[in-house]
Amino acid sequence: MAEKWYIANGNQGDIILSSRVRLARNLVDFPFPCRISPEEAQRLDEVIVKALSDFPGEKLHAVRMSDLTMHRAVSLAEKHFISPEFTDPAPGRMLILSDQEDISIMVCEDDHLRIQTMCAGFAIDEAYQAASAVDDHLDRRVQYAFDERLGYLTQSPTGLGTAMRASFMLHLPALSQNWEISRLATTIGKLGLSIRGSYGESGVAKGDIYVLSNQVTLGISEKAALDNLKAIALQLATRERAARDEMEKNVAFADRIHRAYGILNSARMVSSEEMMELLSLVRLGAVAGTVPVRLETVNELMATLQPASMNADYDENMDAAARDALRADRIRARFAEDLQNQSR
Amino acid sequence: MAEKWYIANGNQGDIILSSRVRLARNLVDFPFPCRISPEEAQRLDEVIVKALSDFPGEKLHAVRMSDLTMHRAVSLAEKHFISPEFTDPAPGRMLILSDQEDISIMVCEDDHLRIQTMCAGFAIDEAYQAASAVDDHLDRRVQYAFDERLGYLTQSPTGLGTAMRASFMLHLPALSQNWEISRLATTIGKLGLSIRGSYGESGVAKGDIYVLSNQVTLGISEKAALDNLKAIALQLATRERAARDEMEKNVAFADRIHRAYGILNSARMVSSEEMMELLSLVRLGAVAGTVPVRLETVNELMATLQPASMNADYDENMDAAARDALRADRIRARFAEDLQNQSR
Repeated sequence: MAEKWYIANGNQGDIILSSRVRLARNLVDFPFPCRISPEEAQRLDEVIVKALSDFPGEKLHAVRMSDLTMHRAVSLAEKHFISPEFTDPAPGRMLILSDQEDISIMVCEDDHLRIQTMCAGFAIDEAYQAASAVDDHLDRRVQYAFDERLGYLTQSPTGLGTAMRASFMLHLPALSQNWEISRLATTIGKLGLSIRGSYGESGVAKGDIYVLSNQVTLGISEKAALDNLKAIALQLATRERAARDEMEKNVAFADRIHRAYGILNSARMVSSEEMMELLSLVRLGAVAGTVPVRLETVNELMATLQPASMNADYDENMDAAARDALRADRIRARFAEDLQNQSR
Repeated sequence: MAEKWYIANGNQGDIILSSRVRLARNLVDFPFPCRISPEEAQRLDEVIVKALSDFPGEKLHAVRMSDLTMHRAVSLAEKHFISPEFTDPAPGRMLILSDQEDISIMVCEDDHLRIQTMCAGFAIDEAYQAASAVDDHLDRRVQYAFDERLGYLTQSPTGLGTAMRASFMLHLPALSQNWEISRLATTIGKLGLSIRGSYGESGVAKGDIYVLSNQVTLGISEKAALDNLKAIALQLATRERAARDEMEKNVAFADRIHRAYGILNSARMVSSEEMMELLSLVRLGAVAGTVPVRLETVNELMATLQPASMNADYDENMDAAARDALRADRIRARFAEDLQNQSR
């Protein structure tokens, strides 16, 4: 089985972890989610499930958010299948996820539908095609709220127009040094894009992982928005690579990478914060080939060893100390596998 | 070839690294070193070299301190063959060192002769016998300054009597926690002994390594002094083992040991301070068998990778950064050897 998009090492995977497209859609027959009644929300779910029942692509699975444990719900947000707000099980909230977890549809979030598609690496066109396939399928079965002048109608006016949010997840450890990323963020904002930390809150980017996304949806075509986003992402990647080349000349920096590997390869307790910080360094070593770890392993550990995901996957009752011990065990085990495979 | 005393793992080597006896002696025919003329000091050297020329034990080698580079001289102090003060090449200062480096005689330090003998582990009686063999040999060839009532006459009145300083080098990481060692030091002082850091200055014990020695030399026989010292050392060892047992129940402590191993096994730059701190933890893991490192390896790295010793052994012109890089390389190489030997 192919590795999932959040684990696979795609095109330009040294820096670009993944590409994502999200389309917001609303149905004319229902009030916006902020005004929908529980009964109408229930009926909306049924309409969507029915409309997708003959979707010809991957198998889709629907789950009501109210049926999930808290850890399982937060786990979905940790993997970026849903927004953090969607973990709150308001009436009608339902997630539709594909077998490969590369299509996720939030029903009754801020809009009736948030169709998301994800691909590994630099592959925003593929993600857009996948989203369009779902969108076209639904468009033939339900009536979207659409206005010739305003485009797709969304609950928040910031989505009007294409109602498309496209984004790249980027690993930018070198640009994160000396706050260079903060200076770049201002320029990026002026170009109609936004860059922010992916895992952290309040501006801190855990693991130096960022999300670069388009902000303008009105008065611009999907293609123009994607082209703009791609150009900036590639420029950031070029700058990041140049900054890495500079850093790699420094023996003290090589020392930091090897120490990060050594600690993760030995520690018996690792918090998720420390894991992200050290894996960011190990990822650089994996790209440069100086530590015996596959990029896919780094991606996998970052994606699967977040706190709620561990509770959901291993034991709902684990406390933080038990998680830290299990996290350390899992990291050591995966590093040992990579070392063994490499020395074969 | 047997490992040198500062590398070998002797009796009670989990805690007691080595035993040492130092005898101060002065010759009636010469003024004390503080008043000796360069010509007399030169003659003293000749008298001692001649008196030891037919020493029946190990082969002895004499070297004038003024013939050594600064790094080589400090290196001898780092290995505890000489006092730090003896690195200053005052007239007549000469070191006589045995092939196995377990007999070292300082000529023209504070006294005419400081006869030192060292053994691995808990072996103070063996060290005393070895020192006595040198002492007896010399006693038949030169005339010692000796008084029936005051015993051996020494330049400083604190040495009068037996003029013997016996000591153990102890690894006390568990007792170092929570300053328990500071509380014990007061009690030890009242018993006529002293405990202080071996490597550090100003009271800090680098690597948690301490020297326990007798302070009283007047009005006490050598045997009584040694028995007293042995009893206290064994009590400290018992307390240290109990404290280690307590610590080892703590997963956070196991984590610290494994991290120390992981860092030393991976880092590209390691200062001597960090090496001592981390090797102290690795030594605990080596004793408990939780890290794949031999105790002898820890002893060797602590003894041979001190700054001046590295310059003397590898390259007189190395700066601190080059030393830190070479130190990291040497540690990784020795850890790799131990791992390979263990997995055979």
